[in-house]
Amino acid sequence: MSRPTLEEHAPVQGYDPRTGEPVGAPVPATRPDEVGRVCDELAAAAARWAQTSDERRARALEAVADLLDAHVDELAALADSETALGLPRLTGEVARTTGQLRLFAEVLRDGGYRDVVIEPAGQGRPDLRRTRRPTGLVAVFAASNFPFAFSVAGGDTASALAAGCPVVVKAHEAHPRTSVRTAELVTRALAEAGAPPVFGIVHGFAAGVALVEHPGVTGVGFTGSTRGGLALARLCGARPVPIPFYGELGSVNPVVVLPGAARRRGEELALGYATSLTQGVGQFCTNPGLMFVPEDEALLAALTEAVAASTGGPMLSRRMHAAYRAAVTELRAHPHTRLLAEGRPADGPWGATPAVFAVAAADFDAATEFFAQERFGPVGVVVTGGGPQEAADRVARGEGKLTVTVQLDVDDPDDVAAARPVVHAASLRAGRLVVNGWPTGLAVTRAQHHGGPYPASTSPAHTSVGAAAIDRWTVPVVYQDCPVELLPDALR
Amino acid sequence: MSRPTLEEHAPVQGYDPRTGEPVGAPVPATRPDEVGRVCDELAAAAARWAQTSDERRARALEAVADLLDAHVDELAALADSETALGLPRLTGEVARTTGQLRLFAEVLRDGGYRDVVIEPAGQGRPDLRRTRRPTGLVAVFAASNFPFAFSVAGGDTASALAAGCPVVVKAHEAHPRTSVRTAELVTRALAEAGAPPVFGIVHGFAAGVALVEHPGVTGVGFTGSTRGGLALARLCGARPVPIPFYGELGSVNPVVVLPGAARRRGEELALGYATSLTQGVGQFCTNPGLMFVPEDEALLAALTEAVAASTGGPMLSRRMHAAYRAAVTELRAHPHTRLLAEGRPADGPWGATPAVFAVAAADFDAATEFFAQERFGPVGVVVTGGGPQEAADRVARGEGKLTVTVQLDVDDPDDVAAARPVVHAASLRAGRLVVNGWPTGLAVTRAQHHGGPYPASTSPAHTSVGAAAIDRWTVPVVYQDCPVELLPDALR
Repeated sequence: MSRPTLEEHAPVQGYDPRTGEPVGAPVPATRPDEVGRVCDELAAAAARWAQTSDERRARALEAVADLLDAHVDELAALADSETALGLPRLTGEVARTTGQLRLFAEVLRDGGYRDVVIEPAGQGRPDLRRTRRPTGLVAVFAASNFPFAFSVAGGDTASALAAGCPVVVKAHEAHPRTSVRTAELVTRALAEAGAPPVFGIVHGFAAGVALVEHPGVTGVGFTGSTRGGLALARLCGARPVPIPFYGELGSVNPVVVLPGAARRRGEELALGYATSLTQGVGQFCTNPGLMFVPEDEALLAALTEAVAASTGGPMLSRRMHAAYRAAVTELRAHPHTRLLAEGRPADGPWGATPAVFAVAAADFDAATEFFAQERFGPVGVVVTGGGPQEAADRVARGEGKLTVTVQLDVDDPDDVAAARPVVHAASLRAGRLVVNGWPTGLAVTRAQHHGGPYPASTSPAHTSVGAAAIDRWTVPVVYQDCPVELLPDALR
Repeated sequence: MSRPTLEEHAPVQGYDPRTGEPVGAPVPATRPDEVGRVCDELAAAAARWAQTSDERRARALEAVADLLDAHVDELAALADSETALGLPRLTGEVARTTGQLRLFAEVLRDGGYRDVVIEPAGQGRPDLRRTRRPTGLVAVFAASNFPFAFSVAGGDTASALAAGCPVVVKAHEAHPRTSVRTAELVTRALAEAGAPPVFGIVHGFAAGVALVEHPGVTGVGFTGSTRGGLALARLCGARPVPIPFYGELGSVNPVVVLPGAARRRGEELALGYATSLTQGVGQFCTNPGLMFVPEDEALLAALTEAVAASTGGPMLSRRMHAAYRAAVTELRAHPHTRLLAEGRPADGPWGATPAVFAVAAADFDAATEFFAQERFGPVGVVVTGGGPQEAADRVARGEGKLTVTVQLDVDDPDDVAAARPVVHAASLRAGRLVVNGWPTGLAVTRAQHHGGPYPASTSPAHTSVGAAAIDRWTVPVVYQDCPVELLPDALR
């Protein structure tokens, strides 16, 4: 990553995606020296937070959840003005975010996250007792497409605070005022709950670089583009003391439709696909941008109809909209694509119209890199023909993915048999296999895993969603022959 | 890391550290295309190995252990000719190595390593079932100082094979013939146990670079120098598909002696220290190179006596010996050190004589970077004076460490109170706290953790020793609403 330019120190201006006009005054970029001050202050409080009991940390997380819930209407309206994602979605996202905070409160009360192993002395072995401790100050890079759930008070922040780590969030440029307001509420709730200063926020590209380079930072959580993530990952590795980088970078999320499912519930599949593809204007990392279907005229007709009935919307930023437009233009111009359908156009300067292109399996195979690339927005590629085994092979080749979905008729033995290689390929190349559902929509639970081979994740052993996300912010320590009175409580 | 030079493609010659003379014929360096061939072959067998049952993988590991045990005398003698570590130590190290293999067989039969979480559908949630799968081909870089336990069939290899990953070992240049012979036995035992081709070995610096850059490799285990490890870590991060690098790079391992312990068992401490410092000619990553002691004339006298009675030995390589000599010369020349004692000199061109230097606490603080650096070999720095709180502060500053040791009199309330800040500092800056023992000697068990903040480990959440070492070679996968007949056995 090159050094920040002057422009990258500029104030951060939010825009209304429906009009392209500025929303309110710009938020000043955080100067690198101010980033240093914030990090120093929070790093100094790390020991106090680490020693705060699980119960008190749980209550602090719940206090944050309660205060955000109490401001849900204000927050959703503010985020809608900066993201145009709509009040129903944003109201739901605040609930998901506070649900995440409460899940981590439960995780703390359960205590299993400490992974305690006690091995008494014997057979020449010493007494060994292992637990996990928080790593220290964590940097969180917020995402553009989830102004709450993957942003200021999102899963990275919740899991790191739960682990006992202070957090500095680098706000995303796409929703600066939402970020500022959320941060105010988080700060107030933590203070009222009696927490030491363990939360901060910084704005602007240069501040993000300064944050990753601060010596007090012990790990980074990131959700965003492959390019930005890789640059930050390399900054993490080039520090005098390298630190782990937990990045969720990008994913195409293939869906494989098996013949029995296509025959039996083609219309339902077409509607489900169009809904999943266009939800949030297609701006999900789990967006089903690539679908493999059998040569089935009825299914293709249903897909055409469902996509044509779908609705677009304004994209989150001018840059994303430009990238989306370029992607659609490129697909349209390709000699081997056929435009299956376009949805209803969206108003406004950043409006995106859903568009789905069909390509024959042989043509896909001849230009896989082009067709299988991630395209942000409501644009899909449907690969027609070729058998289920070939679809499985295509899933097995290609980059790591967050999800693979298979649609089958569970009562059709041919479909069940055909699903096997797809499920196997998915288990090797994705973090989550979805059967007869859609990849968008991610349960935040204990069993969840949101990750996968690179570029889905830069750290494929870790999840950024669900209870296990806390593991990124703790490390083991083992006590050998330590007298009980010197052991931490969890090991006594 | 720059591209390999011609010299780095040269055959690998082992030497007898007692004489500096070559041992046998050189082992040809593995050409990069041959590295590619080996990796391709093993990567192709990855799926078969991953699908081999836990029980059959366990038996394969036990077969390796049995065959190595059956050749313990031959192996120890061969390793002694290349390392001069002595037959008792090397015989014991073979047993430790086969014990590790058998521990991982147990881990497989226990099955807990799969970390299965099953969450039935409910409250709008889908059915989610999570387990872990092997990542694929693993590269292991052997260490110089453990020709068995951290080498061809060592803990990295055992844990990766157990996880279901094929392994290619980059042999260490310090014991090529031991590596070749061990590899022959491992290959034979695996074949006889019916395993697919899942083990390979390569030789030479250039082969190591080709190995890390091979697209089929999914992770790297490394034990060695900070410089070499960092270079490999950056290669891993710069690949088109970055992969995790699990490196144990280096550590000073501070020992804090509290006043009560010094008074009550000064002689025992002095003897224990001298033994730990000079064991294996001081060539352990857990070597207690730095010790903080109170101003206690009797203890210093005992230390002087114990070190003077200790014995040196030949170091593993010409380069290590040169580095050791330079370190001792530098310490001797420093205006603020006092030579406390030298041990009995060792014969031969690479012989190292134990040497321990004393430095006053204030002088240590004025030049911490110099005094607290890792020095490989039987050379120690003893910091005298300053209270236990200051010693704790010194432990808390400074680099990450594999271990911190505290020596206290458990019946002395002052010692117990003084130990608290040391234990706390240790818990933040080291992977293992040792009470009233010595850091060398590492139990290979379920609770063990061998790691710590950088540079002790490049991946401080992971251990390279003990049952949890297997976690480095598996990643989670979650199955959403998957019919039972399509689930892996572990999730049914």
